[in-house]
Parts: sequence; C-alpha cells; structure tokens
Amino acid sequence: MVDILHKVGIRLSSPDEVYGALTSLAGLGGWWTVDTRGRSDVVGGIIEFRFPAGGFDMSVVALEPGRRVLWRVIEGPEEWIGTRISFDIRQEEDWTIVLFKHLDWREPVDFMHHCSTKWAVFLLSLKSLLETGAGTPAPDEIKLDAWE
Amino acid sequence: MVDILHKVGIRLSSPDEVYGALTSLAGLGGWWTVDTRGRSDVVGGIIEFRFPAGGFDMSVVALEPGRRVLWRVIEGPEEWIGTRISFDIRQEEDWTIVLFKHLDWREPVDFMHHCSTKWAVFLLSLKSLLETGAGTPAPDEIKLDAWE
Repeated sequence: MVDILHKVGIRLSSPDEVYGALTSLAGLGGWWTVDTRGRSDVVGGIIEFRFPAGGFDMSVVALEPGRRVLWRVIEGPEEWIGTRISFDIRQEEDWTIVLFKHLDWREPVDFMHHCSTKWAVFLLSLKSLLETGAGTPAPDEIKLDAWE
Repeated sequence: MVDILHKVGIRLSSPDEVYGALTSLAGLGGWWTVDTRGRSDVVGGIIEFRFPAGGFDMSVVALEPGRRVLWRVIEGPEEWIGTRISFDIRQEEDWTIVLFKHLDWREPVDFMHHCSTKWAVFLLSLKSLLETGAGTPAPDEIKLDAWE
C-alpha cells in the first residue's frame, strides 16, 4: 500500500473554519468541485463529488469536530475504490494545520502521481478559500495535462 | 521507505526543453530557486540549491538526455540526506510528461507531507516556466505555512 501525503497551513485563529469547509456541501463546493451533493455532515453519509471527466462517491467514516475527517471511496475510478482520504486538523498559534492523506493505493501507478499533484492544487484552493474568500474548485482549477 | 510522487504534463513538442530546465543552472534557477549553483550537467556534479530558510546539495547520479535525471541528496535537512530525487520524462503527442519521485524517506513525518505539497508548487512553476516563459522560483513561490 502507498499513500499520498500533503500539508498546508491556513492563517486562521480556530480550526472550526477548516472543519466546516470539509463537512458542509457549501464548503466542499468552494474548494474541491462545485458539483458536490449528498450528506457530508454525518458519519455514514454519502458524498457525491462530480467533475467534467467523472467523479467519486465517498462514505463518511469518521468526524471529530475541529480535529479529523475521514472518508472511504465507494464509487469512482477503479484505483480509488476502497482507498481512504483523511484530514487531520490542529491549531498552532495563528495557523490551522491540515495534514492530508490519501491512503491505501494498491500500486504507485501514473494516475497516483497525477492525483498527488492534483490534491496539492485543491488543498491550495482550500487555503485560498479560507484566507481570501475565494477558492478555485473544479471545473476552474489548474489543469495538469491532456487527461483533463 | 516512503516516497513523494507527482506528475505534470507540459505542452511542448519535444522533451528537450524539460531536460534542459532540469540540467542547466539557468533552467533550475527559473523554477526551483534562483540561488542555484554548482555543476548540474554532468554525472558526479554537485548542485547547491539555496532558499531563505536553508538549502540542499545534490549529487547528480544519472543523466539520460530527454529521458531521465536522478539526484541524491548529500547535504541538507537530516530527513533529506540519502534520499533520491528522480525525474522521468517522456513525450506523449503534444505533451512532455514529467513523472517525479522523491524516494526513500525513512518515515512519513510532517515535514514529508510539507515537502510533498511544496514539490507540487515547484513542479507547477516548472510547467509555467516552459509554457509561459515565467516560473515562480524561490524566494517568490507560494508559501504554505509558518515554517516558511
């Protein structure tokens, strides 16, 4: 198993805003993809993320307010099925720190490399959303190559 | 051992430009850090990359024109010493594809998460340099948190 790892700091005085952006449809639609539906605020909820080229359904596995969000992929590209996406949140003085992990890839395929870079693009969108009020969710995010 | 993986496509008709941006001081200074010195164009050369907060020395381990660049870290933060940085390049129609790996981290520490996101920032700078003529090398790149 191999993992995608990222970390961003967001200049905020409390972790509540990051937690909100990860657990509300308006928040998720503000940094990842505007076409976000379902239930993101309860354990067991199903969130449907859609992009021009396809999408993912996530089951909400764990929610700890201000501390942690964990999803499991239940529909989407074959490489994503069964993988887990984890956000660990902590406050360090004037910064909310987000440790991100996309866990349990079976092989380090090219698509995993692509998704790693793309997650960075979207986490910078999350940072921008919360620091400036404007993120760059799909379909308007930075494109990486001909796959998009 | 754990690895950082990324992939970007750059709209170019030949892999030579990417190879040049990875093996010349002017190229490296155009996307990673303006303070780049040493010998980047020969196997066994030592490249010195400097940033406001410190730097890295790399030994050039392998060079295959238009196909591959491999460095080994010989000086820098403890977590980086002995790790390897690999760029595999290939042409796919109108795109030069760069598969990036920062290999052989001993532990998935917070600093590895940070460096993963930061590598994405710099690979997008490489893409911008070659597609538009302007990258955003350090010290003017996107900052992620209070560490910078």
